[in-house]
Amino acid sequence: MTYLFQFKSVAKSLLLACAFALYIPAARSLANDEPDTTEMWLVTTVRWGNPMYHTMTLDISGKTLNGNLDGEKLVGTRINSTIEFLVRDNNTVHSYKGNIEGNSISGTSYTIDTDNAQDRVLHNFTARLIPRKPPGPARLHEFKPTDYSNTFDPHRLPVLTIWPGDTVRTATLDSGGVDENGKTKALFGNPQVGPFFIATAEPGDTLAVKLNRVRTNRDYADSLDSIVGRALGANFASQAGELGNPVRWKLDRVKNVATLEKPSDKLKNISLPMRPMLGGLAVAPGNGMPAISTGDTGRFGGNMDSPDVIEGNTVYLNVQQPGALLYIGDGHALQGDGETSQYGLETSLAVEFTVDVIKGKAISAPRIESPTQLITLGQAGSLDDALKSATSALVQWLQQDYDLSLSECGIILGSSVRYSVPNLAGRNVGVAAKLDKSVLSGIPRKN
Amino acid sequence: MTYLFQFKSVAKSLLLACAFALYIPAARSLANDEPDTTEMWLVTTVRWGNPMYHTMTLDISGKTLNGNLDGEKLVGTRINSTIEFLVRDNNTVHSYKGNIEGNSISGTSYTIDTDNAQDRVLHNFTARLIPRKPPGPARLHEFKPTDYSNTFDPHRLPVLTIWPGDTVRTATLDSGGVDENGKTKALFGNPQVGPFFIATAEPGDTLAVKLNRVRTNRDYADSLDSIVGRALGANFASQAGELGNPVRWKLDRVKNVATLEKPSDKLKNISLPMRPMLGGLAVAPGNGMPAISTGDTGRFGGNMDSPDVIEGNTVYLNVQQPGALLYIGDGHALQGDGETSQYGLETSLAVEFTVDVIKGKAISAPRIESPTQLITLGQAGSLDDALKSATSALVQWLQQDYDLSLSECGIILGSSVRYSVPNLAGRNVGVAAKLDKSVLSGIPRKN
Amino acid sequence: MTYLFQFKSVAKSLLLACAFALYIPAARSLANDEPDTTEMWLVTTVRWGNPMYHTMTLDISGKTLNGNLDGEKLVGTRINSTIEFLVRDNNTVHSYKGNIEGNSISGTSYTIDTDNAQDRVLHNFTARLIPRKPPGPARLHEFKPTDYSNTFDPHRLPVLTIWPGDTVRTATLDSGGVDENGKTKALFGNPQVGPFFIATAEPGDTLAVKLNRVRTNRDYADSLDSIVGRALGANFASQAGELGNPVRWKLDRVKNVATLEKPSDKLKNISLPMRPMLGGLAVAPGNGMPAISTGDTGRFGGNMDSPDVIEGNTVYLNVQQPGALLYIGDGHALQGDGETSQYGLETSLAVEFTVDVIKGKAISAPRIESPTQLITLGQAGSLDDALKSATSALVQWLQQDYDLSLSECGIILGSSVRYSVPNLAGRNVGVAAKLDKSVLSGIPRKN
Amino acid sequence: MTYLFQFKSVAKSLLLACAFALYIPAARSLANDEPDTTEMWLVTTVRWGNPMYHTMTLDISGKTLNGNLDGEKLVGTRINSTIEFLVRDNNTVHSYKGNIEGNSISGTSYTIDTDNAQDRVLHNFTARLIPRKPPGPARLHEFKPTDYSNTFDPHRLPVLTIWPGDTVRTATLDSGGVDENGKTKALFGNPQVGPFFIATAEPGDTLAVKLNRVRTNRDYADSLDSIVGRALGANFASQAGELGNPVRWKLDRVKNVATLEKPSDKLKNISLPMRPMLGGLAVAPGNGMPAISTGDTGRFGGNMDSPDVIEGNTVYLNVQQPGALLYIGDGHALQGDGETSQYGLETSLAVEFTVDVIKGKAISAPRIESPTQLITLGQAGSLDDALKSATSALVQWLQQDYDLSLSECGIILGSSVRYSVPNLAGRNVGVAAKLDKSVLSGIPRKN
Repeated sequence: MTYLFQFKSVAKSLLLACAFALYIPAARSLANDEPDTTEMWLVTTVRWGNPMYHTMTLDISGKTLNGNLDGEKLVGTRINSTIEFLVRDNNTVHSYKGNIEGNSISGTSYTIDTDNAQDRVLHNFTARLIPRKPPGPARLHEFKPTDYSNTFDPHRLPVLTIWPGDTVRTATLDSGGVDENGKTKALFGNPQVGPFFIATAEPGDTLAVKLNRVRTNRDYADSLDSIVGRALGANFASQAGELGNPVRWKLDRVKNVATLEKPSDKLKNISLPMRPMLGGLAVAPGNGMPAISTGDTGRFGGNMDSPDVIEGNTVYLNVQQPGALLYIGDGHALQGDGETSQYGLETSLAVEFTVDVIKGKAISAPRIESPTQLITLGQAGSLDDALKSATSALVQWLQQDYDLSLSECGIILGSSVRYSVPNLAGRNVGVAAKLDKSVLSGIPRKN
Repeated sequence: MTYLFQFKSVAKSLLLACAFALYIPAARSLANDEPDTTEMWLVTTVRWGNPMYHTMTLDISGKTLNGNLDGEKLVGTRINSTIEFLVRDNNTVHSYKGNIEGNSISGTSYTIDTDNAQDRVLHNFTARLIPRKPPGPARLHEFKPTDYSNTFDPHRLPVLTIWPGDTVRTATLDSGGVDENGKTKALFGNPQVGPFFIATAEPGDTLAVKLNRVRTNRDYADSLDSIVGRALGANFASQAGELGNPVRWKLDRVKNVATLEKPSDKLKNISLPMRPMLGGLAVAPGNGMPAISTGDTGRFGGNMDSPDVIEGNTVYLNVQQPGALLYIGDGHALQGDGETSQYGLETSLAVEFTVDVIKGKAISAPRIESPTQLITLGQAGSLDDALKSATSALVQWLQQDYDLSLSECGIILGSSVRYSVPNLAGRNVGVAAKLDKSVLSGIPRKN
Repeated sequence: MTYLFQFKSVAKSLLLACAFALYIPAARSLANDEPDTTEMWLVTTVRWGNPMYHTMTLDISGKTLNGNLDGEKLVGTRINSTIEFLVRDNNTVHSYKGNIEGNSISGTSYTIDTDNAQDRVLHNFTARLIPRKPPGPARLHEFKPTDYSNTFDPHRLPVLTIWPGDTVRTATLDSGGVDENGKTKALFGNPQVGPFFIATAEPGDTLAVKLNRVRTNRDYADSLDSIVGRALGANFASQAGELGNPVRWKLDRVKNVATLEKPSDKLKNISLPMRPMLGGLAVAPGNGMPAISTGDTGRFGGNMDSPDVIEGNTVYLNVQQPGALLYIGDGHALQGDGETSQYGLETSLAVEFTVDVIKGKAISAPRIESPTQLITLGQAGSLDDALKSATSALVQWLQQDYDLSLSECGIILGSSVRYSVPNLAGRNVGVAAKLDKSVLSGIPRKN
Repeated sequence: MTYLFQFKSVAKSLLLACAFALYIPAARSLANDEPDTTEMWLVTTVRWGNPMYHTMTLDISGKTLNGNLDGEKLVGTRINSTIEFLVRDNNTVHSYKGNIEGNSISGTSYTIDTDNAQDRVLHNFTARLIPRKPPGPARLHEFKPTDYSNTFDPHRLPVLTIWPGDTVRTATLDSGGVDENGKTKALFGNPQVGPFFIATAEPGDTLAVKLNRVRTNRDYADSLDSIVGRALGANFASQAGELGNPVRWKLDRVKNVATLEKPSDKLKNISLPMRPMLGGLAVAPGNGMPAISTGDTGRFGGNMDSPDVIEGNTVYLNVQQPGALLYIGDGHALQGDGETSQYGLETSLAVEFTVDVIKGKAISAPRIESPTQLITLGQAGSLDDALKSATSALVQWLQQDYDLSLSECGIILGSSVRYSVPNLAGRNVGVAAKLDKSVLSGIPRKN
């Protein structure tokens, strides 16, 4: 069988919770003099050896339980520390029974296929309380990483739990694992900072990552003189073997330019304005998908290598796991479209970003919003497929935020869309569809 | 067999000349008190029913003939009005015998395969003198077309013969054949003005077309609300049937903006700056290739639908026939990348261009030079192949004009190349590779 | 604008008839004691220089004219030799007035756009009577070509007019224009025999070409040792320059095997069963499309280079011009899938085929029916697109002939479809979708 | 940066050994009266959190250590239980120091970049002795799995250690995790049996898996009526929503046919010969690559869904980890090319296979050898790229086993290659290049 990573209603029972880097006691909401007694839990199971993660809301303040599990209504009872509840999902009923102790629950669940009642499977599950947002304004987190991830991994422990509105200030290594002091701190291959657990984010939401600051923090970058196979025609293929040599660039942070450390005579005057960008920015892939290489891309983002992931822009990603599990890394001081030399100008970066969660809004592909443009990023195994993904994502954006019909989108695109090709160097290629906001200035925007 | 339109040394004997719109007696060069007695001829044959065109230089001032035919040296004799000459091409000898009368020659030729001497084939050929450039400065031609071509046709009679440096001022119809007064003058389907015969242009040269003026000359444009199949993902395919409706735009030439004639409520404020462009610009395809649809593209240019074929830019095309045979048409007041609505904002245009011929410089794909950028246009059946063509063409440009090595090109592209996707709506798609001239400002340019 | 060769209702008025190789007085049908007085005419116009062809049925036996033009009903009158009639097509009315003399009509037509009545365009038209099928059984035509076509040309005069059921026995040249005696008779590049005008065939019909005999008729074939760029990976690209050498094969017609004339030591025992096939088989492209290279393919067929176009099989093509205008050529004694060496084993062939016309049945892509398989041939600029075309054409076949739903087609394909890749060597590539008839043996076939 | 999974000389120091399912004391070879004192170890490190695996040969019989690590020579000393050794790799020296206790070693290593000596990184490593092949003939292992893997995982503990020549008899679940008794035993999504550790297999070798028996072992299979998006053209896209319905097939193991359980009236007589195949067959991906989805494919094999992975054939895979780590699963009772219905006829299977290791022979893509054909399987994001991979792999096979030049390969392919399209339903598509062995019957085969 070939399955396309669709696990719609597969998993509703669970084991072993993902640990939290921070524990913060749940604050009580006092609106209307009525405390909000509903809390959010991260539920984990291992189904035949495969951990899966789910979000549960639960009001355990009385004897009758109310809430939902991954959006499906649950009903049940509580007797002292024992809770029991049922969740119905089409012709399947999931039955849970567990013991609650402080911020954790553990127990067993089984699933009854109402068409095929004899096939019961018992699983263990655990749950941990997701702390409530601390009172007061959004916070700024100075985060100094101590280790790095070489995959976009749904199973990796979060390094920090943050809330919508919070800001993180941190630093990324270069793609070879080298930091701002030239020290190797992680394994070669786009090691990432993270994951950050964004409380309240659930599959089906959109995570917004506003890049307040993306700056180089050292004085060199490493690149190659390659031209990737997807870019160079067969007429040059016989010479491609001459390429692949390392090229070091000097980064002048005062003048904001990059120059070659040991240029050939022809290139001795090359001096290029830097445009620091994050090559990698991703949420964790969803249940049923393994950890994904930090060289790969998809709807979850990843190693998109877009020259538009820069300071001042906001990146939107489709949440696929509870808490989103945000990863960042692989900074470039500068990069041409397509990253045709296989490496951009690879360097470490100082990064500051603010997160937000748009509840209940699913997006089909990563988006970037700049002060002047809407940009969607299609990722696929061929440019032809990636362009379709990018265009469809832009149509979806116009429909969701501007309430346009497909015909109206056709008129807008035909007169005004722009395409670029950010990424040619990975397994997937990437195509960006762009629209100037000025085109849309006369159309009301919903959000 | 599948043949790739390669007829390298196939045709060297010929019949029936292409007529010239102008006849101008050959002027004599007087440098060094020695008249230049070499003249250029257009030679035609019909090989088994297929007309083929060739350029011959011939000095017939004495009894001994000297010159060349498509670049191969010819030697022969003249006795009164009878001329005879031989051309050798690898292991083939082509023998010509003809009668010269004023500006025309007619006769027969045969080809001897020296490996296979018994297989002689006799062909008729004719030749007509290509007039010399008139004395004085380059000229401005006001050209009012009376008919239009619905193919890029190597066999169509030139509408005008011009010389390098000359300028043509003319007007194009819209893609439906409608002129600036709203009158239908030609068949639907990108009818073209031309062909213009540019004297001295030969296969292997490059034709430069400087666009001095590309302006709208009426107050409306016609488009559609479509989204082409190459742009829209399968998730919207089921709705694509709602599209394809005509959309008329009003063109305000004073404010230089386009607005919708009958907008929906949402689009009532859409007002877009015009950016008039020529969708079609081509030379005739080479010997052995049939006339090509004005909806098609290739190394010869064609319906490239590039938003960069605008006033102020210069387009370079690879010459494939004697005289190049330049065609222009299919103006758009504005177009998004990819011409995703199948039609741009289709309108008639006022056009003025100046031609030049770069002798002996062959280019692998169409080029555009703007005041600030080098742009190459790859055309192929998939975006993946078109992008390779565009990148390779840009490498060729950097090698030809800046004398860069492949490694140096790799460094430049990796840091600075930009890609766009001008054309998604035809049989071929088009990808543009772009480089800011500022990147190259420190590198000497050869020509 | 980019137009996709759609000229739905463009042309209904016309000039200059295509000549017929045979003139046969119209026979009268005598069914029901009532002579059938309706006759079929080929109508030609040149719309702004572009000849277009149409089929007209006309009963001129009384004073009132009845019939249709390209399927649209016409009504009119006849007074002596003057005929006048109107055809309505959506909001356009086409008005014709002409003079009839024996088997030809000539006159003028104009078109009135009822929405835009002032824009009248006058065209000349001519028509010639298509002879009726001669009485008696279907005939066998021995046809010895005297010239050949290097394009699939809608404008070329038919070499022979035949009727459904008729058989033609002829011979094709090899792709280099060389006949069975080793004499060059036509220009290099897949010269074709034809076109054959199949009376009664109209656009929207399907032409069936049953290949009764496809045999080699000389003792050698020419090929290359190439591997085309679409087949060979980049890892071998640097060695591709070593290839492209001519390879001559000896054809033993008694043993039916091909061996190398000058084999390397390793290949000295290679002896391969021949499987003679026609690389080229096409109808003329439709109105508005130029003549197409004999190296190209499309819905009209063309240089499909399918190893299944062999003796015993029937090829079905979508008729696009009155009379279909059938071309054949480019025989191979043998060919691997994809024609990866750019040339198959190119040779001349003895061919016999029988034609039939399936009225009113349009097919989306060429089909081949073998004694055991249904085969559809998708042609496109990439394998991904060609495969979609082939699959969709097979679904269409199952729906048209077996009356299956899309769901039933899905079940059949998922269990039983086979794909091959006949053609990699042209501008288009080709993918074949195949289904064993044994799979369908329990399902009634409609026709 | 975009990295293409190349970790050439990255990892030579290591921690934490992979456990062995069997422990067998190392047997001593007695050839020449000299015991062979060299033994093979599996070495593991975690480099910045990433486990990596390596093969070490070591003779610890004296005070001087000899051997190699991943093919690089090592030299060192042993004093009691303390061993120290150095490995040099270009301008890097790796220094190891550890303690040996029975079958395991643990210690630390550090790497010195001789160009950049101050940047030392210390890692822990462990090693475990790989047992020697037991004396006597190759063995037959009856293996009854107790759990299953939903990824092709380089980190999963082997379920069994076997040697070249050994045979395994086992059973696979269907793609939904259901066994021969209809019981769900694993998570939906191609759960795999394995991994099997094949002693002596190292990266750079080729693993041969001879399929002695591949048979259905229950009486039903589950499928869909889908047509995947890569197969169906846009003209049917609007109807694709009707598809995706479950289809159950009955499997008659006596008659060896599949019929529909609840056929529509049209399909009631469909009865198809079964052709049981393994959709999934893979080795683990190499160091630096994460576990790969059991729906994905690559040079390591994977969910290739080839209808040629059947009883009687041998599959060859490129070894990427010590021990190869073989996985099998996802049986189909029958499948059309492309698995166009997204599911084949999914069922559980009884499987028996024999393994062999071809030392020092690397292959660029999976191969299948049937009694009559050589078959290579290209996997890529587009058919165009997959076909190049398959062709290049077939050329490599002809060069490795038949010692043919590229020109000779060109001649063979051009006359005789066949292509099919096994897989359209995953992220990658697959193209097979096939050659009848009869074509090569006159050419000596090397191995």
